[in-house]
Amino acid sequence: MTGDLTGFAAVFPLWDRLSDADRDTLSRVVTRLEVSAGTVLHNGSADCVGLFVVESGQLRAFIRSEEGKEVTTWRLLEGDVCLLSASCMLHDIQFDITVEAEHDSALWVIPTSDYRSLMDSSTAVANYTSQLMASRLTDAMWLIEQVMWKGFDVRLASFLVEEASLEGTTTLSITHERIAAHMGSAREVVTRMLRYFQDEGLVELSRGHVRLADPVRLRVLASR
Amino acid sequence: MTGDLTGFAAVFPLWDRLSDADRDTLSRVVTRLEVSAGTVLHNGSADCVGLFVVESGQLRAFIRSEEGKEVTTWRLLEGDVCLLSASCMLHDIQFDITVEAEHDSALWVIPTSDYRSLMDSSTAVANYTSQLMASRLTDAMWLIEQVMWKGFDVRLASFLVEEASLEGTTTLSITHERIAAHMGSAREVVTRMLRYFQDEGLVELSRGHVRLADPVRLRVLASR
Repeated sequence: MTGDLTGFAAVFPLWDRLSDADRDTLSRVVTRLEVSAGTVLHNGSADCVGLFVVESGQLRAFIRSEEGKEVTTWRLLEGDVCLLSASCMLHDIQFDITVEAEHDSALWVIPTSDYRSLMDSSTAVANYTSQLMASRLTDAMWLIEQVMWKGFDVRLASFLVEEASLEGTTTLSITHERIAAHMGSAREVVTRMLRYFQDEGLVELSRGHVRLADPVRLRVLASR
Repeated sequence: MTGDLTGFAAVFPLWDRLSDADRDTLSRVVTRLEVSAGTVLHNGSADCVGLFVVESGQLRAFIRSEEGKEVTTWRLLEGDVCLLSASCMLHDIQFDITVEAEHDSALWVIPTSDYRSLMDSSTAVANYTSQLMASRLTDAMWLIEQVMWKGFDVRLASFLVEEASLEGTTTLSITHERIAAHMGSAREVVTRMLRYFQDEGLVELSRGHVRLADPVRLRVLASR
C-alpha cells in the first residue's frame, strides 16, 4: 500500500474487516478525488461511477421531481459511504438519485465493478452493503414519517437545527430557495414559515442568512 | 429434505443458489405457518421472529404514527420475502414496522439467528439480503415521491388501480377507513375524494364497496 492510501484506510469503515488480498485489490483500484462545492458527482441513472467514501467535506443526495423540485434524502459526511452512486450494481435499486458536493470535499472512489467483485467473494463486504442499505432505508422511512405526519413548521425547525449542527454555527448562510430544495417544498412556503418563526422570536432573517435566535425552542419544536 | 418442504423450495427465491449444506440447514429450521386474515405477524420492535417467505396469500407491512395513523409501505405476495420482521438482525434498521396478514396466508418462517448465520457464511445469502433491502428502499423512495409531489387524487387513483389488480376484481370490498389507513390519510379526506371521483364517473360507491366504474381513466389519472 502506498503512503497515499492511508487516508482511505482511515475513513473506509470496512477496512479492518477485509482480508489482506481484498485490501490489496482495493488499494490498486481506488482513486482520490477533490471537488469543490456545487460539483455534481452522480446524476441519476446517467452514470455509475462507483462508491464514494467521504474523506472530508459534505455531500448531499437528493431526488428530483419531473417539474425539477428537489428533496434532500441523505447527507454524507466524513467516513460515510455513498452506495447509490453505484446503483447499477444492484439491479433492485430503481430510482434516480443525484449526488453533489455541498462543501469542498475529498473523496475516494471505489469503481463499481471492483466493489461488485468484492461483494461476490467476501461475506464481510456483502453484509456491509446490506447494512449500508438498511441505514439508507431507515433514513427514507424517517423522511416518510416526517412528510406524512409532521407539520411543515416541525420539519422546518428540524431542518434548521440539523443544518446548524452540521455547519457548527447558528447563523446559516442559506437562501429560502435552497431550503425549499432540501425540503421538497416551494420557496414561498419556506418564506412564509420563516417569517412566522421570526415573529415568534425563533429566527432572525437577513439577506442570504437565517440566524437561529432561539435554538432551544427550535429544538423543542423539531422534536414534536 | 422431507416432502413437506417442497413448498418452501418452490417459493424461496434463493433456494437454487444455496449450497447443499445451506439447504440442509434451512430444511431443519424453517417452519410453516397458516394464518387467517387480520393476524398480526410482527409488531414493531416487540419481536424478531424471523424472515417470512410467503407461500400463498398476502401480507401488508405498515408504519404507524404516534397518534395511531397508518400508512402501508409494502405488500408481500406469493414468493416475496419479508426481511423486516427480522429487523433485529440488522442493527442499522431503526424503524418499527407492523406486518399483518391481509388475506388468509401460508408462510414459511426462517428463524432470525439461522438466517444471520447463513448471511455470515454465504455470499449468496448476504447479497440476496442486499438485493431485498434495495428493493424495499426503491419502494420507500417511490412512496416519498408520491407523497411529496403527487396530488391526493393521483395517489388515490393509484391505490384503487393497484388494489383492483391485487384482488383481481374491479369491485373492491373495502371501507373508506381502511383506504385511509393504507394511505396514511384521514377517513374524511378519502370520502371527500371518492365522492368527487363518483361525480366524475370514475367510481361507484356503496356500503363497504368501491367499484371502479372507469378503470381506464383511473389508470390515466394514476400515471399522471
